[in-house]
Amino acid sequence: MTTSPELPKTPVFAVLDGMDGCGKTTQATRLVEEIARLRGEGSDPLHLREPGSTVAGERIRALVLDPDVQLGSGSLALLFAAARRETLEQLVAPALAQGRDVVIERFHASTFAYQGGAGLTDDDLLSMLHGWAGSPRPTIEIVLEIDPEDSFARAMARDGGGSDRFESRGLEFQRRVAAGMHRYVERAPLAVGIDGRGSEDEVAGRVIEAVLRSAAEATLA
Amino acid sequence: MTTSPELPKTPVFAVLDGMDGCGKTTQATRLVEEIARLRGEGSDPLHLREPGSTVAGERIRALVLDPDVQLGSGSLALLFAAARRETLEQLVAPALAQGRDVVIERFHASTFAYQGGAGLTDDDLLSMLHGWAGSPRPTIEIVLEIDPEDSFARAMARDGGGSDRFESRGLEFQRRVAAGMHRYVERAPLAVGIDGRGSEDEVAGRVIEAVLRSAAEATLA
Repeated sequence: MTTSPELPKTPVFAVLDGMDGCGKTTQATRLVEEIARLRGEGSDPLHLREPGSTVAGERIRALVLDPDVQLGSGSLALLFAAARRETLEQLVAPALAQGRDVVIERFHASTFAYQGGAGLTDDDLLSMLHGWAGSPRPTIEIVLEIDPEDSFARAMARDGGGSDRFESRGLEFQRRVAAGMHRYVERAPLAVGIDGRGSEDEVAGRVIEAVLRSAAEATLA
Repeated sequence: MTTSPELPKTPVFAVLDGMDGCGKTTQATRLVEEIARLRGEGSDPLHLREPGSTVAGERIRALVLDPDVQLGSGSLALLFAAARRETLEQLVAPALAQGRDVVIERFHASTFAYQGGAGLTDDDLLSMLHGWAGSPRPTIEIVLEIDPEDSFARAMARDGGGSDRFESRGLEFQRRVAAGMHRYVERAPLAVGIDGRGSEDEVAGRVIEAVLRSAAEATLA
């Protein structure tokens, strides 16, 4: 379909999600720059990283990363959901109310992919994530999809495979996460899978195209 | 109906809930003693207080009580649910598996009554609490019901009305909590409302009677 190269008048609330090493931070930064360029002077999109964007989120993040604290997958999902509610209420809603665009890294797809399995069904997780998400809802949830082999290699190169509780559990783990991300894309109404392979510029082009397309569709709807 | 004065062969998992000042701790202690007496020598029921019975629960409790951390009602409900899942998985399930009875203070009714309202419907909260509770499920959830005026007076006498984030928000707040406890009793399948007024002995008699009756009904079912 033909897409309009224009952002909507109402502010955009875009999620950039995907497994570790997919290029979320790079692409979120590019998206913020591109939105600012399209909006013109005075535009200052808010770039958030989740969890940890609020005091509550920082504390929850510290708790979750503490190796002395035993937490099952269901409890982790609940804690991330709580952090996300606070980000939405304290930061996203006020920004959008002021007409400011928002780009956020990590959202439901990460919780779905990382905390799924282990006794939690996809349906349970989805209904929990969407039922307890709080508001506002994103305009679009972009999931950058890459090969799990690439994710594994990048994580190993970055931290030697040992520093982070979530990111370095081996190739089999990365494959399960990639499959979870893809199931999220298939099931979640606002989720769009974007090919995260290729050059930074290529991926950035796909991301802004998806954002503009979703905005055009929302305007037509 | 006639009730059997015997505990079931399988261990009991009894919840003692109710608003602040209802006598939870006193009655939970009495129930533990009575179960031990009925079981005879070697019985050592586990008495838990929720949240805070696990390392995760202690940390979540500290986070929730920290005045520097802004948390909405929905986020609080999610955090308490996470603490409860860990208590169930780490402490209750292993105790029951060893044949040990368990008595726990505070459970779903508290979350329902204290975090309800403020944008959360009863249906949303109930489905969240029961859908994300984890396992095992209690044998019975006793809610000690008292007049909110009594709860308010006891809280004022105890801490002068100022020390705790949840317990001392005035009489109107106590009335809303009492109403929430009662709605939980009406809606939750395992919940039983017990008159918490009268002497300690009178209430203890009602509590053990309810536990024995629920055990007899479960055996007949």
